[in-house]
Amino acid sequence: RPRHQAMAKNTFMRWRLPLVCLLWELAMIVLFGVFVRFGAEADAHWEEEKREMNLTNDMENDFYFRYPSFQDVHVMIFVGFGFLMTFLKRYGFGAVGFNFLLAAFGIQWALLMQGWFHSFKDGKILIGVENLINADFCVGSVCIAFGAILGKTSPIQLLVMTLFQVTLFSVNEYILLNLLHVKDAGGSMTIHTFGAYFGLTVTRILYRPNLEQSKDKQGSVYHSDLFAMIGTLYLWMYWPSFNSAVSDHGDAQHRSAINTYCSLAACVLTTMAFSSMLQKKGKLDMVHIQNATLAGGVAVGTSAEMMLTPYGSLIVGSISGIVSTVGYVYFTPFLESRLHIQDTCGIHNLHAMPGLIGGIVGAITAAAATEDVYGKEGFIKAFDFTGAYQTRTPSMQGGFQAAGIVVSLLMAFAGGAIVGAILKLPVWGDAAAENCFEDGIYWEVPQDEESDVYHMHNPEKAASP
Amino acid sequence: RPRHQAMAKNTFMRWRLPLVCLLWELAMIVLFGVFVRFGAEADAHWEEEKREMNLTNDMENDFYFRYPSFQDVHVMIFVGFGFLMTFLKRYGFGAVGFNFLLAAFGIQWALLMQGWFHSFKDGKILIGVENLINADFCVGSVCIAFGAILGKTSPIQLLVMTLFQVTLFSVNEYILLNLLHVKDAGGSMTIHTFGAYFGLTVTRILYRPNLEQSKDKQGSVYHSDLFAMIGTLYLWMYWPSFNSAVSDHGDAQHRSAINTYCSLAACVLTTMAFSSMLQKKGKLDMVHIQNATLAGGVAVGTSAEMMLTPYGSLIVGSISGIVSTVGYVYFTPFLESRLHIQDTCGIHNLHAMPGLIGGIVGAITAAAATEDVYGKEGFIKAFDFTGAYQTRTPSMQGGFQAAGIVVSLLMAFAGGAIVGAILKLPVWGDAAAENCFEDGIYWEVPQDEESDVYHMHNPEKAASP
Amino acid sequence: RPRHQAMAKNTFMRWRLPLVCLLWELAMIVLFGVFVRFGAEADAHWEEEKREMNLTNDMENDFYFRYPSFQDVHVMIFVGFGFLMTFLKRYGFGAVGFNFLLAAFGIQWALLMQGWFHSFKDGKILIGVENLINADFCVGSVCIAFGAILGKTSPIQLLVMTLFQVTLFSVNEYILLNLLHVKDAGGSMTIHTFGAYFGLTVTRILYRPNLEQSKDKQGSVYHSDLFAMIGTLYLWMYWPSFNSAVSDHGDAQHRSAINTYCSLAACVLTTMAFSSMLQKKGKLDMVHIQNATLAGGVAVGTSAEMMLTPYGSLIVGSISGIVSTVGYVYFTPFLESRLHIQDTCGIHNLHAMPGLIGGIVGAITAAAATEDVYGKEGFIKAFDFTGAYQTRTPSMQGGFQAAGIVVSLLMAFAGGAIVGAILKLPVWGDAAAENCFEDGIYWEVPQDEESDVYHMHNPEKAASP
Repeated sequence: RPRHQAMAKNTFMRWRLPLVCLLWELAMIVLFGVFVRFGAEADAHWEEEKREMNLTNDMENDFYFRYPSFQDVHVMIFVGFGFLMTFLKRYGFGAVGFNFLLAAFGIQWALLMQGWFHSFKDGKILIGVENLINADFCVGSVCIAFGAILGKTSPIQLLVMTLFQVTLFSVNEYILLNLLHVKDAGGSMTIHTFGAYFGLTVTRILYRPNLEQSKDKQGSVYHSDLFAMIGTLYLWMYWPSFNSAVSDHGDAQHRSAINTYCSLAACVLTTMAFSSMLQKKGKLDMVHIQNATLAGGVAVGTSAEMMLTPYGSLIVGSISGIVSTVGYVYFTPFLESRLHIQDTCGIHNLHAMPGLIGGIVGAITAAAATEDVYGKEGFIKAFDFTGAYQTRTPSMQGGFQAAGIVVSLLMAFAGGAIVGAILKLPVWGDAAAENCFEDGIYWEVPQDEESDVYHMHNPEKAASP
Repeated sequence: RPRHQAMAKNTFMRWRLPLVCLLWELAMIVLFGVFVRFGAEADAHWEEEKREMNLTNDMENDFYFRYPSFQDVHVMIFVGFGFLMTFLKRYGFGAVGFNFLLAAFGIQWALLMQGWFHSFKDGKILIGVENLINADFCVGSVCIAFGAILGKTSPIQLLVMTLFQVTLFSVNEYILLNLLHVKDAGGSMTIHTFGAYFGLTVTRILYRPNLEQSKDKQGSVYHSDLFAMIGTLYLWMYWPSFNSAVSDHGDAQHRSAINTYCSLAACVLTTMAFSSMLQKKGKLDMVHIQNATLAGGVAVGTSAEMMLTPYGSLIVGSISGIVSTVGYVYFTPFLESRLHIQDTCGIHNLHAMPGLIGGIVGAITAAAATEDVYGKEGFIKAFDFTGAYQTRTPSMQGGFQAAGIVVSLLMAFAGGAIVGAILKLPVWGDAAAENCFEDGIYWEVPQDEESDVYHMHNPEKAASP
Repeated sequence: RPRHQAMAKNTFMRWRLPLVCLLWELAMIVLFGVFVRFGAEADAHWEEEKREMNLTNDMENDFYFRYPSFQDVHVMIFVGFGFLMTFLKRYGFGAVGFNFLLAAFGIQWALLMQGWFHSFKDGKILIGVENLINADFCVGSVCIAFGAILGKTSPIQLLVMTLFQVTLFSVNEYILLNLLHVKDAGGSMTIHTFGAYFGLTVTRILYRPNLEQSKDKQGSVYHSDLFAMIGTLYLWMYWPSFNSAVSDHGDAQHRSAINTYCSLAACVLTTMAFSSMLQKKGKLDMVHIQNATLAGGVAVGTSAEMMLTPYGSLIVGSISGIVSTVGYVYFTPFLESRLHIQDTCGIHNLHAMPGLIGGIVGAITAAAATEDVYGKEGFIKAFDFTGAYQTRTPSMQGGFQAAGIVVSLLMAFAGGAIVGAILKLPVWGDAAAENCFEDGIYWEVPQDEESDVYHMHNPEKAASP
């Protein structure tokens, strides 16, 4: 009986999952105790600090510049990604719940990793609202990778992947932002390109030849598609906050939001067009609407804070919507059948390709920058051409931006291969192929009237009553 | 067989919808390329601008005054309106998806139309966060009109309607705000009155005599009502942001939010009261709770930024909740049977009547304004009695406000009639009457297996096969 | 037939509910008319006020410091609490709808009650955005109590409870904040401890010995658990805004958000760990994920604005997740069987115990405060050791904090007992035991016919039976 074979794979989490969660949380507490303190603007000494810096107004605290954007980003990570993945008919708990778990662990570890690289002073990591945003960003790349392996991994595998991916993300981010001095405020390269190709490599290595055994559970039902639209819309609406959240105060944040808004609007139209066009019956496909409409946000992630201009954003958004929808129709089946890349949510279409577009558009926009367009001061400020980078020209910057794409790809492939190999070890409790995309393996699932549905799939039970 | 008759109507979208989407997006790109540029506060030259304007603080960028409100408004347009309309049992994809499509196109076209009227300088439209809010507002009026024709039109019809309605909205808004010098920050007249009567006129012209053929699909199911409550609550919670989003900085934004908060709170109580009272069994009706509770936001749309006072807001909110609920019980059936106005979502009760109330309350509040209540400077600032309007008295202002209602109504009726006639052309691919309110016509719908569930609870049905 | 027995209990709302709603709303209008006016920052006189106070910038209006947090809190009250309680399979309308009703009434009454205590000047209550937040906070404590009696009370009982609980909340809050001079910005004591023990006392008094008659409706179904996760995530994501919303401008708001973010992240991991560990099959339980993950926000409600430090927050969050999950597994059944406390949502685990932890952590953190850690000025500002409190020492403050816990508990028990007794009167229209947790009693519930819809599309199935 297939049921028993499934049980042959040990998915019993009772001691393994608690052990990992508790030990790792303990490690976080110890590391935070040793390293993490409040930054100046969150510390009670700020009253004195303010006087020393001649600040007259409580508003001049980074909290007020970034907190609203932080909250929007926070919603994108937990509700946006979480609900976007609830489209599967029987994996809603896993989608929302495991996303919750990995993100909650990931932000703690990211505060440390990114803190060591960027906020380390006198042996302490000093954190403020910008660190919270960056931690959420970092975890965003894990949520993306999760999309590729959704339904096929145990929660422990996800935690292990999070641990490694956050680490590699931080290293990659450090190389890009500090060594290459690249601009990437919305993370086309650091978050999307890296996260997606990392996830695709992992899922390639975890290839399951018998996955069609759970094919009946890989689809959606009517209401699960509506739950997924909650995720889609929150990602879509708040993406302007995502791309502007850590930009410079003032015009840069303002500009990022406008560019992203424009790109996303255009993306919806081209997605709808191609969704209908690529289908014989001409009907719209929810998979495209749920995902490809977001490609416009990914594709301006690097350039949104630059002078991309609103019409430039429309062009980028339009193209990315087309590329992403075409990807769902033609590339995803190809990747699965030929390259053995089983990409549950289609992150190749939503994050990988648009992320590459975003990196390239960023490189071009940077290379095309002129003092005329930015103003003399604006030019220096936008690309931070100060100190050691005083002599950089726009075309050099464009070259470094391009290098950033390559580095991100290499890190993703190498990192994904190693982490994939680790996750392949037979100790993490992943399910057998015929139990993939099924919440019942790791969750107490309420006795729906829906359970009866399953009887039909279990002829024995259905017959025996 | 009815199926075949239905197919007689050509709802095939494969070439028509992509063509419209792609050509129009192309037009947007060209027009944006020619006209749209960043406003001063979003342009990289702002660094220099700031010095010239003696601004010492990055906070003095309109972005920080309005971006949080913008995001709330954005949620209202896409999640609020989108999910509010998911109450239909088999039209959730269309509700959320078509709302997404028309709003994404509409905001682009609105940026242009409103830009030409209000932000045009030296041949360029200069945009900033306030333009984004206004574009969302403009599209809000289209979402309202969509509510009247929900389930009965093709996506192409919706795009055509959006094109025309955004245009007419912008003209009407220009007449009201610039020619009549009327105050309407929350859009009781420009958004709600105009949008609702426009939509009602359109649906009147598109009257379908055989609509009862799809009566069985016009209701809700349990979970679709809960999805709709997501829309309701986001509209309700963020309405204070809606009404205050483009008010003057400082006390006006603050006051708008408070007035709207109070009006909405009162509205919930009178809605619940009348929902129970107007029903023989005394049970609450989800239709009322989902809609009439929002009338309080509509009804203070003009006056919220004035000194309406909290108790004034409670009164307006209470009345509008009653009017709206009574409308659902008595007016909607009357409009349908006698006037042949088939109003799917009941926008007459949620937007039309409360919009009129809002316009009237605004006129009265303006007419009753005194220097004593507003303070000398506050009085001038609140109504912008400067320049050519220096000599306006409150009672004159009240008169102009009233004129604004009339103009909005006329524009709505005339525009709705013309656009309705255009939409009646037999080329847009709308569905036959028996296929209305059915996602399957324009969407790939997943094969649910829920139906089988019900057999088991209906032993008769389950046995009889 | 049981149906008829049920009808023996008069749940007919037609005249009672409207009467209560309308009369109480009328009372609100009269009281607002007599007492409530705009505060200086929302009044049109602000232009002059600004000049007098030498404010040069519109940003220096409390609106811009607090409005984004206010909106987050608003979402928590209406969507957060509302949807968290939709987990029941047949009580989604009641959960969202009654929460909506009681909160809409409660915020009006809270504006008055808290206004008399805290914003009363020259016979008027002067309100601004901080009053709106505090009104939402106050209502939060009612939403918590609602969780204990969910599904077992009529809407009128809920309104009566709201009237009394808001009153008692305000008195308790006044004693704590003004008489004991206690810090409790996130309300561990005033909101959670008070609200939860109040609700538990009420449900104890309303004990229903035959509740197992509706046991079949006390569970969830698959999609109702997903709806509940919307509530959970919004509460979780916005809790940093909740705990920082009314803290002092600047570093205190910043610090509160960071501490809460950390505590909540840790809480998720320990909750997942114990949820799996305490179950024989090692599977995760949605009840825990939906609720215990939030305990970390409750447990730093008092101390978040203090120098709790990020690692301190991790510790508190970790512990509260454990306590809360253990509570669901062991305490809730015990409370029900032995103490006759029927706690539908398990507020004892989510609010009562974590609230106590929060009070205690607050007392310890205050007692441990030093000028070294806070800075001289920061120390005075953090605890407001000015005026009459100039001589307070940290250890004294710790003592007063502890006294605040005791007072909150006493107020909750006494108040809950009295209000419970009032609610036991047989005039409020609550349902019979076998009709609990059933929307059909107070709501028009749609005829779910999804199955039938499909028959029409599957002519074979429809015909062949």
